[in-house]
Amino acid sequence: MTDAAHTAAKKLPERTVERLSEYRRMLLECLRQGRTHIYSHELASMHGITAVQVRRDLMLIGFSSDTKKGYAVEVLIDFIGTILDSPDPLNVGIIGMGNLAQALTHYFNGKRTQLRITAAFDIDPQKAGRTVAGVPCYHMDTFVETALRHDIRVVILSSPSSVAAGMVDPILRAGVRGVLNFTSTPLNFPDSVYVEDYDIITWLEKVAYFAKDNR
Amino acid sequence: MTDAAHTAAKKLPERTVERLSEYRRMLLECLRQGRTHIYSHELASMHGITAVQVRRDLMLIGFSSDTKKGYAVEVLIDFIGTILDSPDPLNVGIIGMGNLAQALTHYFNGKRTQLRITAAFDIDPQKAGRTVAGVPCYHMDTFVETALRHDIRVVILSSPSSVAAGMVDPILRAGVRGVLNFTSTPLNFPDSVYVEDYDIITWLEKVAYFAKDNR
Repeated sequence: MTDAAHTAAKKLPERTVERLSEYRRMLLECLRQGRTHIYSHELASMHGITAVQVRRDLMLIGFSSDTKKGYAVEVLIDFIGTILDSPDPLNVGIIGMGNLAQALTHYFNGKRTQLRITAAFDIDPQKAGRTVAGVPCYHMDTFVETALRHDIRVVILSSPSSVAAGMVDPILRAGVRGVLNFTSTPLNFPDSVYVEDYDIITWLEKVAYFAKDNR
Repeated sequence: MTDAAHTAAKKLPERTVERLSEYRRMLLECLRQGRTHIYSHELASMHGITAVQVRRDLMLIGFSSDTKKGYAVEVLIDFIGTILDSPDPLNVGIIGMGNLAQALTHYFNGKRTQLRITAAFDIDPQKAGRTVAGVPCYHMDTFVETALRHDIRVVILSSPSSVAAGMVDPILRAGVRGVLNFTSTPLNFPDSVYVEDYDIITWLEKVAYFAKDNR
């Protein structure tokens, strides 16, 4: 699919994007186990949804398969990749390079080839100007020009809450269009920026709430 | 609210629980900034929802306030706490104590008093039997009896994908009822266990997907 076709393509609904990403993870696990084919009902049961939903999602993205053996695992992984991944590598920046951010960077880089954390930002003079967790770390003050120079499209915001809100404007000026908000500060971005809140505290509280009376 | 009342109380919808947790974060930020009161439309705009939704959520949990100055920040924080938090401390276990898990443990403990990571599990003999990131680390083989002894209600699953699926049964036998799945392996739990997938790869892919053409 050409870049122009990607741009012109209508965006999929959020939940579909999440499910496609989950299908890919399951398919990669199948590949790891040496499986070559998988049926829609198997993909469905691994995820707690219906086979109808799986088939509907794959039809929506234009994947068709008429083998009686089920979907070819590698072919489907690649096809989902053409939908989910950018045709070109996409650079991710990480703002705030504390221990958790460093651990995340190590964990994440290498898992996906088209999506990489390529720059980190921090105010700590011990980190700025050095390579940290395998990526070059720059001083926070240079964020806008560095992000523009590195063509950073997505940032992970993992700085302390007290500075997070102050990063909204620089993030906008740097042309960043997606934010994974790892802080507990809600951020006020315009609709042109896609934001996901990924604060572990909120998620653990939610799990605890639904778990606490389940005995 | 007594423990019996908590148990009898009907569970709130998932999105409401998420929003309440987000309101609390915003309110704690207000508290940090020295604000004593906040209006529903301010809470709403910080989160990109309507004031009507905020008022509806608070009415649903039984919070009423008729001061013209808006909601009293500290009072509302405490009230949300009676809804979201267990009346007793709730113990969290973390399965797999790699660098990311250790960073998470340091980050998380201390943020909420009723919810603490109190035990870690790993197969590494250098970690089992020691205190890691401030919590006692036990050998994975002892998971079921240790989790029962520690009354672990919720686990964070952060082990390698290859062992994650094998932990489903021990988690069930240990009476755990909530799982924050940090791995990229989809897990097949019965409905009695509340599971949230928190795989950073999926979330970053989703942000990148919606960000990639936003220029």
